Amino acid sequence: MEEWNKMAQYGDAFEGKKILITGGLGFIGSTLAARLVNLNAEVVLVDSLIPEYGGNFFNIIGIKDRVKVNIADVRDVYSMNHLIQGQDYLFNLAGQTSHLDSMRDPYTDMEINCRAQLSILEACRKHNPGVKVIFASTRQIYGVPDYLPVDEKHLQHPTDVNGINKMAGEWYHIIYNNVYGIRACALRLTNTIGPRMRVRDTRQTFLGWWIRSLFEGRDIEVFGDGMQLRDFNYVEDAVDAFLEAASSEAANGKIFNLGGTEIITLKELAALMVEIYGSGTFRIVPFPSDRKVIDIGHYYGDFGLIHQTLGWSPSTSLRVGLANILEYYSAHGAHYWGGSDDPVR
Amino acid sequence: MEEWNKMAQYGDAFEGKKILITGGLGFIGSTLAARLVNLNAEVVLVDSLIPEYGGNFFNIIGIKDRVKVNIADVRDVYSMNHLIQGQDYLFNLAGQTSHLDSMRDPYTDMEINCRAQLSILEACRKHNPGVKVIFASTRQIYGVPDYLPVDEKHLQHPTDVNGINKMAGEWYHIIYNNVYGIRACALRLTNTIGPRMRVRDTRQTFLGWWIRSLFEGRDIEVFGDGMQLRDFNYVEDAVDAFLEAASSEAANGKIFNLGGTEIITLKELAALMVEIYGSGTFRIVPFPSDRKVIDIGHYYGDFGLIHQTLGWSPSTSLRVGLANILEYYSAHGAHYWGGSDDPVR
Repeated sequence: MEEWNKMAQYGDAFEGKKILITGGLGFIGSTLAARLVNLNAEVVLVDSLIPEYGGNFFNIIGIKDRVKVNIADVRDVYSMNHLIQGQDYLFNLAGQTSHLDSMRDPYTDMEINCRAQLSILEACRKHNPGVKVIFASTRQIYGVPDYLPVDEKHLQHPTDVNGINKMAGEWYHIIYNNVYGIRACALRLTNTIGPRMRVRDTRQTFLGWWIRSLFEGRDIEVFGDGMQLRDFNYVEDAVDAFLEAASSEAANGKIFNLGGTEIITLKELAALMVEIYGSGTFRIVPFPSDRKVIDIGHYYGDFGLIHQTLGWSPSTSLRVGLANILEYYSAHGAHYWGGSDDPVR
Repeated sequence: MEEWNKMAQYGDAFEGKKILITGGLGFIGSTLAARLVNLNAEVVLVDSLIPEYGGNFFNIIGIKDRVKVNIADVRDVYSMNHLIQGQDYLFNLAGQTSHLDSMRDPYTDMEINCRAQLSILEACRKHNPGVKVIFASTRQIYGVPDYLPVDEKHLQHPTDVNGINKMAGEWYHIIYNNVYGIRACALRLTNTIGPRMRVRDTRQTFLGWWIRSLFEGRDIEVFGDGMQLRDFNYVEDAVDAFLEAASSEAANGKIFNLGGTEIITLKELAALMVEIYGSGTFRIVPFPSDRKVIDIGHYYGDFGLIHQTLGWSPSTSLRVGLANILEYYSAHGAHYWGGSDDPVR
């Protein structure tokens, strides 16, 4: 697997700095943690380990002696009030991320993606107003695009409860920046892929389930006509964006799209995965009705603003990214498949 | 006071229909109720009578024998589950409307403007999916305008917690329309003025406080430089918009701006009020800092979409509206001033 080593880029922005990562045992949080410990930061990971979410101790196996893990739920106000104290940076990644689950249980999605965000920001305001906060938002806020690529001037018209609540959570951050001077910014992530991504079911990404299907010898099921366009970010590129946003005052109060440079149809993506894996099959199947009503159609993002403001652009090709993912799950898949009980397909 | 009688316009859309109005003892809710009972609808008013909000039994003194009042909070899920049953229309007007209060207590604002909206829509989905819902949203969602007049294509970038939560509450309605077929639409109200508006303090509108100041012989205090542009809708015109949205299937899933035709600076408005009242004074005072940080600057709305779709446009001049308001409070002010305890100025 390729090595990422961009220490030079951030100088000593994170050297000896105290850092809190919510969702720290998850896919992106743990990858970010690994980068930060290599930059000599003191990292605390907060995670609730809700089984259906992305937290997984195996994600930090390589860095477990260099981070502190604190099991807590971001909805737990008193714990968050304590944990935020003394931190230099808060990477705020914990969230309910499943679109389908947000429709089945809108209250839980609201408690995590709205209320907990408010209480985290209130904790910052009351206990650590000097902290800098980087919030993981989502392209889901845009809903079905009016035009492509989608830039930050695109209207927000989400298609599901998760998109609405993430929109609220994001804007709480911007308002706490603007009104209270809590330095905060938001990154609207597109499909983020990489080692440690959740592959047990389709709750976080369809791609995770495709990976599991490939390894378990089932057809990859591509919903709809397979012609939906998508962009992807390799997780180390997404982590770069978080670090760049954290280390620049120019990011404060801003919302940035991430986005990929290789726009691809889902059918082409499935074929590419089969090619890289060296075996497997995919087939086009009708959209399940509960997914169809919240589907966003074609999507790819314009990341010009973050490129201009922070110099960020993704550098990992889709082919390299997918190869790394397949290599990772070939070695470590057993830690990720989970049981066969009720995976959400 | 002028009479509003547009029965012909809606035909028999509301004749004998069962109607629930949340926030029904408030300013707009009670005015809507009066119109609906004159259209021979069976009207139930839900209101929590939270002292700082707009509910006031005097608002329905003229129709109290023709409506049913049910005291309940929209956060009370079981009550709402029951009350929604059998209704043909839900005019969903209950909300926390104070921008300042939303900053001081963001959780309460979230519980009312987010969570309660979700539970009302879940109640519709489970107990009365055939109901039609008209949601009272707000121009506050737009924040500081990027251009004027503001149309519905304007980006949503609220400046306070209330604006964020109302944005979420609005979008829940749109998604329940799109995903579950619960017919719902939203009206983004601008400054709505008229008899029965809250005048006790500045919680709902600055204009209410101006009225009280005028009657109590104090200077009207105009914040900033007084050059801020605003538009206004007279309450009966806003009520027309609610009734037109309710009676048209073309409104389903839509978001409409309301807006006024007379754009006026706050200073001119204060002068006009003094002129109509026949006495009084106003003075320009610095913006209180807690208001300045959430102020939206100039605002006026483009109501072209609702005009094209539903034929709505406001018909009451600002002068007539203000004259009606002053006449109303001259006769009934004692029912509205409230105590002098802790008015939010």
